[in-house]
Amino acid sequence: QGILERLDAGEIVVGDGGFVFALEKRGYVKAGPWTPEATVEHPEAVRQLHREFLRAGSNVLQTFTFYASEDKLENRGNYVAEKISCQKVNEAACDIAREVANEGDALVAGGVSQTPSYLSCKDKAEVKAVFQKQLDVFMKKNVDFLIAEYFEHVEEAVWAVEVLKESGKPVAATMCIGPEGDMHGVPPGQCAVQLVKAGASIVGVNCHFDPDTSLETVRLMKEGLQAAKLKAHLMSQPLAFHTPDCGKQGFIDLPEFPFALEPRIVTRWDIQKYARKAYELGIRYIGGCCGFEPYHVRAIAEELAPERGFLPEAFEKHGSWGNNLSMHTKPWVRARARREYWENLKPASGRPYCPSMSKPDGWGVTKGAKELMQQKEATSEQQLKELFQKQK
Amino acid sequence: QGILERLDAGEIVVGDGGFVFALEKRGYVKAGPWTPEATVEHPEAVRQLHREFLRAGSNVLQTFTFYASEDKLENRGNYVAEKISCQKVNEAACDIAREVANEGDALVAGGVSQTPSYLSCKDKAEVKAVFQKQLDVFMKKNVDFLIAEYFEHVEEAVWAVEVLKESGKPVAATMCIGPEGDMHGVPPGQCAVQLVKAGASIVGVNCHFDPDTSLETVRLMKEGLQAAKLKAHLMSQPLAFHTPDCGKQGFIDLPEFPFALEPRIVTRWDIQKYARKAYELGIRYIGGCCGFEPYHVRAIAEELAPERGFLPEAFEKHGSWGNNLSMHTKPWVRARARREYWENLKPASGRPYCPSMSKPDGWGVTKGAKELMQQKEATSEQQLKELFQKQK
Amino acid sequence: QGILERLDAGEIVVGDGGFVFALEKRGYVKAGPWTPEATVEHPEAVRQLHREFLRAGSNVLQTFTFYASEDKLENRGNYVAEKISCQKVNEAACDIAREVANEGDALVAGGVSQTPSYLSCKDKAEVKAVFQKQLDVFMKKNVDFLIAEYFEHVEEAVWAVEVLKESGKPVAATMCIGPEGDMHGVPPGQCAVQLVKAGASIVGVNCHFDPDTSLETVRLMKEGLQAAKLKAHLMSQPLAFHTPDCGKQGFIDLPEFPFALEPRIVTRWDIQKYARKAYELGIRYIGGCCGFEPYHVRAIAEELAPERGFLPEAFEKHGSWGNNLSMHTKPWVRARARREYWENLKPASGRPYCPSMSKPDGWGVTKGAKELMQQKEATSEQQLKELFQKQK
Amino acid sequence: QGILERLDAGEIVVGDGGFVFALEKRGYVKAGPWTPEATVEHPEAVRQLHREFLRAGSNVLQTFTFYASEDKLENRGNYVAEKISCQKVNEAACDIAREVANEGDALVAGGVSQTPSYLSCKDKAEVKAVFQKQLDVFMKKNVDFLIAEYFEHVEEAVWAVEVLKESGKPVAATMCIGPEGDMHGVPPGQCAVQLVKAGASIVGVNCHFDPDTSLETVRLMKEGLQAAKLKAHLMSQPLAFHTPDCGKQGFIDLPEFPFALEPRIVTRWDIQKYARKAYELGIRYIGGCCGFEPYHVRAIAEELAPERGFLPEAFEKHGSWGNNLSMHTKPWVRARARREYWENLKPASGRPYCPSMSKPDGWGVTKGAKELMQQKEATSEQQLKELFQKQK
Repeated sequence: QGILERLDAGEIVVGDGGFVFALEKRGYVKAGPWTPEATVEHPEAVRQLHREFLRAGSNVLQTFTFYASEDKLENRGNYVAEKISCQKVNEAACDIAREVANEGDALVAGGVSQTPSYLSCKDKAEVKAVFQKQLDVFMKKNVDFLIAEYFEHVEEAVWAVEVLKESGKPVAATMCIGPEGDMHGVPPGQCAVQLVKAGASIVGVNCHFDPDTSLETVRLMKEGLQAAKLKAHLMSQPLAFHTPDCGKQGFIDLPEFPFALEPRIVTRWDIQKYARKAYELGIRYIGGCCGFEPYHVRAIAEELAPERGFLPEAFEKHGSWGNNLSMHTKPWVRARARREYWENLKPASGRPYCPSMSKPDGWGVTKGAKELMQQKEATSEQQLKELFQKQK
Repeated sequence: QGILERLDAGEIVVGDGGFVFALEKRGYVKAGPWTPEATVEHPEAVRQLHREFLRAGSNVLQTFTFYASEDKLENRGNYVAEKISCQKVNEAACDIAREVANEGDALVAGGVSQTPSYLSCKDKAEVKAVFQKQLDVFMKKNVDFLIAEYFEHVEEAVWAVEVLKESGKPVAATMCIGPEGDMHGVPPGQCAVQLVKAGASIVGVNCHFDPDTSLETVRLMKEGLQAAKLKAHLMSQPLAFHTPDCGKQGFIDLPEFPFALEPRIVTRWDIQKYARKAYELGIRYIGGCCGFEPYHVRAIAEELAPERGFLPEAFEKHGSWGNNLSMHTKPWVRARARREYWENLKPASGRPYCPSMSKPDGWGVTKGAKELMQQKEATSEQQLKELFQKQK
Repeated sequence: QGILERLDAGEIVVGDGGFVFALEKRGYVKAGPWTPEATVEHPEAVRQLHREFLRAGSNVLQTFTFYASEDKLENRGNYVAEKISCQKVNEAACDIAREVANEGDALVAGGVSQTPSYLSCKDKAEVKAVFQKQLDVFMKKNVDFLIAEYFEHVEEAVWAVEVLKESGKPVAATMCIGPEGDMHGVPPGQCAVQLVKAGASIVGVNCHFDPDTSLETVRLMKEGLQAAKLKAHLMSQPLAFHTPDCGKQGFIDLPEFPFALEPRIVTRWDIQKYARKAYELGIRYIGGCCGFEPYHVRAIAEELAPERGFLPEAFEKHGSWGNNLSMHTKPWVRARARREYWENLKPASGRPYCPSMSKPDGWGVTKGAKELMQQKEATSEQQLKELFQKQK
Repeated sequence: QGILERLDAGEIVVGDGGFVFALEKRGYVKAGPWTPEATVEHPEAVRQLHREFLRAGSNVLQTFTFYASEDKLENRGNYVAEKISCQKVNEAACDIAREVANEGDALVAGGVSQTPSYLSCKDKAEVKAVFQKQLDVFMKKNVDFLIAEYFEHVEEAVWAVEVLKESGKPVAATMCIGPEGDMHGVPPGQCAVQLVKAGASIVGVNCHFDPDTSLETVRLMKEGLQAAKLKAHLMSQPLAFHTPDCGKQGFIDLPEFPFALEPRIVTRWDIQKYARKAYELGIRYIGGCCGFEPYHVRAIAEELAPERGFLPEAFEKHGSWGNNLSMHTKPWVRARARREYWENLKPASGRPYCPSMSKPDGWGVTKGAKELMQQKEATSEQQLKELFQKQK
């Protein structure tokens, strides 16, 4: 059954987790470029991560094609093996995802994300051509549906949806925005309306913000669609990091990004609460983004097992709310084998010399300069440097 | 070259990371029992993790045989596929480790750990027979050397060393203790002396405490050996969790153990500081235990690259102190591409409603009861329950 | 010169600090009732506090008549010496304030605050009669001007202003609200407009929120007045407690209120920043409320000394930004004798087992019940108990 | 009845609180010099504070003669009105204390503290002459007993006791040390023994550390005395600041000293716990030092009211464990009117951008240099500057 058949029938679809962050920690992705050439260089590592998410309960395996557009791969060429073509990266990603999806009951989704072409002010045709190139591979490899994800500007997201829609396959679209809306200030409700009008059947958010903030953004999208009398399925794939202190651009601006986010990692219990809250909000495509490890995805599948009627395969190595601790040798550890314990625990950081929140960087940057930088990110290195110096 | 040749020549040996915790998050190990039947059930997952550690710079691949003694596997039998024999688990572990070790320049170490037999007061001969059974497999599979690790009582560790020593292979021994010493109160220095006298060529600590606390324990071991005019190589494989608030038994007693330790996870920069400090203390076998992911091991290899003259393979997807951010589109993120930034950052938890330290459980338990429970952990379930109720 | 002459001439007027909280800590006011019978019982204690504020730089001494309305004193009669009449309390307050004001260059302001009569739904005439009774004393004692302060409902504040205005003396009005507005949801801008239309020459906020939040509320008041083309002087007298985690009703709802607010107390440096920010926002009557001790008031006077051209008397026992440490015997303490040090310090709480923020109580209470309770606080004890039980 | 009669009879003696810190906040003492010329300049302020402590339950009023030795007053002469002689300051202090003591059931204790003469290596005779000069005033004014307090070096404390002892009046001696002992490394137990041998009838600690740490130090003193078979009454007057992160020299070294200690201020509930713990340890002279406000002293008197059989006067404006909140209008505030609530509350700081602990300054200073500085604090300014620069 296809993605829309499932969602139309009221099923819950569990997404997968954060490939770039998980593979960065495993040694296969470089922070900074964040490009997915590992599909060619180390397919076994990508395959294993897919398997873990499948086992954890994912119903969708996204091709590992984040930032795999031709312009991006070239742009950051000095960081990747130069001879690996965009086409090879995308093809390998499709093959691996399909191989693992066939081991279980999962769909393969081909994904595109925002492009350097748009940020450097290329025109609509040029930007669309970049998406088309990836779409050609997805069609050749016959993915099950398509996702346009991680867009900061709704204009570019709409262009992506328009290209993907041409294929005839179902299209989902998620933006990496918070309640304040996209980088030009378009509010979430309006973003959702534009995406549905462009052809997306599923809309929502991914990345940049924590579960709570992301759900608030999806709520605003839902309200926007209702006001416009439009229908679409809702989707959320947030960070697995607590980010109550973020500004408009999310966790990128936090001083801890990307190499000291550890104290912010959410627990499996945080995710169970997120899954429940997402479900109650009417979201039926529930997954994660950066920071989501297989055990986080499993937590979604476990929390919603009563509604779905089944548990994920990896549950064989887990228990409900810690009940696998009931046979621990120490009685005070056994006392933790219950829901109330984990639900109410306020976990300590073990870092008494650290604060609990940070001021995002870029706040000191004047509004005009920041917007310029954000909207059309940096026509030239020099220009940016000057702007930045001026703010200091 | 063998482990002792390397260490005797003054080389730094980089250990590997925490299998049980990493595989728990990936869905292959059950918290509570913590047994390694995955070597038979899901060899591809174990193999992949070995590969990641190898690629991150590990010079030793430990067989995934933690808690793989026959008594432990039986004891917790209801949690594992009952038909998998102790022998099969250990053999598969050796095969996988060897296969991956051969892909690079790594040694294979067969490992044993503390047993339920000791805790339930079996006699010396019985306990030794348990270790012998695992050793038989290690000899058949011809591992390069042996590690007795994760012992809370020096008496049992000495018995293990005595068994392993019979093989003629080099023996390392690490205890999961802190500066207060073993569960019977034997101080670290005395533990080290007993282990070396029993035949260990390498001694140190693993698990239960964070890097700083673990190094303090090794320092005390070193002093004990010097006072006794004994020689041995030093080894440390600490947690990748901050635990400044631990009592004698380490992180087991923390309220966050084992399912809400996320805010305590150390950063790669914490590990670089740990590696440097360990080196300066004279430790030459430097690795990690629970919580150590491949990127933590890579941080050891990167920090000590100047001394060693080479970088790990996975460095191709990293940079020194964040310099891979120097091409980021946002200037304030580029400003993070420098050592001073990451070295001095005090990372926030994003959890303003949580404390920074916890009171370990079991502190409220009266001393007598606690010691009884710790020393000979619970002859019967009932007895324990009574003790625990009495303390409440 | 009167208050309006000063403000019209562009002078900065420094208010005084928090009598009820300071005298509670000194042993003369009872938390809960918070009534000021100390003016009769212990005039020397009230006089001394007035003197300290005067010495710290206050240009206004408010009569210690908070909650000194007849209905309040009766209402809480079981907590105070029953024979002290409302009139005596108010008269003594006026006498003490005038005595100390005459020792320096200060004005005396007679103050009224919200009444139990309003909260128990007495009609307009009855409520106004309560204010009139206090006003009669203020007129007899010839105070310099009048302040209606600590009102949660703009309707009652307007009634108070209408009564006070009749006297012909200048009237200031401050509400204890945050950016969300009064307890009926009237936004700050609209509150300000209503107060000015009722006759207040000075409007602003006092109590319930920290300096930053209070300034934001005054900013909204200023915008409201500008939009309505009304003119008035602005005034702020916030808490000396950090309350970033407050809901609509401010610090009353925080779990720490009123006996564990210590970790939230602001430093003198926080107050210097507040004074500067208030000045830049156009506020010219700058003082404090609960938590403000004499040294906090002095910090206002010191920060704005360049604009005013003089320092407060108590500066003789202080220095600018800690420069009085420059002769300390320890060099690392001397190193603290500079502005950058104190301006940038992030002071630790010394409480690693405590969180940095709290969830306000009453959040769990359903919206309807909470509003009922807030609007017309509790017709009967029983009714409230039932409501509260229902929410639990 | 004299101090020894009371203590010998098993009575609890409640001390008073921190004059220099309280009067600094009220505007009468200058941080840095910390000298008590206010006794002459502003006797009404000193008298009022004495009255508040008396009312709160203090059985002893210490003359406000901290740092009132002639060498100190001269040394810091540029900060005080130069014409006020040492004799006048001390005489006025005695007169004020006696006046207020006569208003209730309190004793007057004349106090001396450490001197610049000792720190600049003057010989024993010279240092003793400094103490003698203050003692002459105490004898003339006929104080009830004597306290040698705030000594970092036991040698100087012993000299002080020897001088005071000559008077024939009872002598108490408290050092401002922690469990690590005095600045020359003499452990607390040994300090206590030396002080008792020199003639002190009461020994203990004051200042520099929080209640918990101070009690631990007194416990060590008690053990030392027991081991030496000596008898003395025990006394504790700790800080009212949480200082778990202090080094050997206590809160002086904390980055927050002295102008940003607010988040560390202890609550009245912390003090009730302290009073109980002190009592259980056998301490019978229980008071406070810097940070102790009248309500903290009242908390001691309230906690030990069952043992003493009476409550302090200021209890009329308080309640037991917050029960005065039981008539609050808001039900969730009324719910705080109980012991369990305040006993278990973990109060938030409202400062999510601040850490919970600090690294003391001076830690970076090399051990040798630091000791030199601490032992004989800085023979010359220049020498210190060089040392400090060298450490940086």
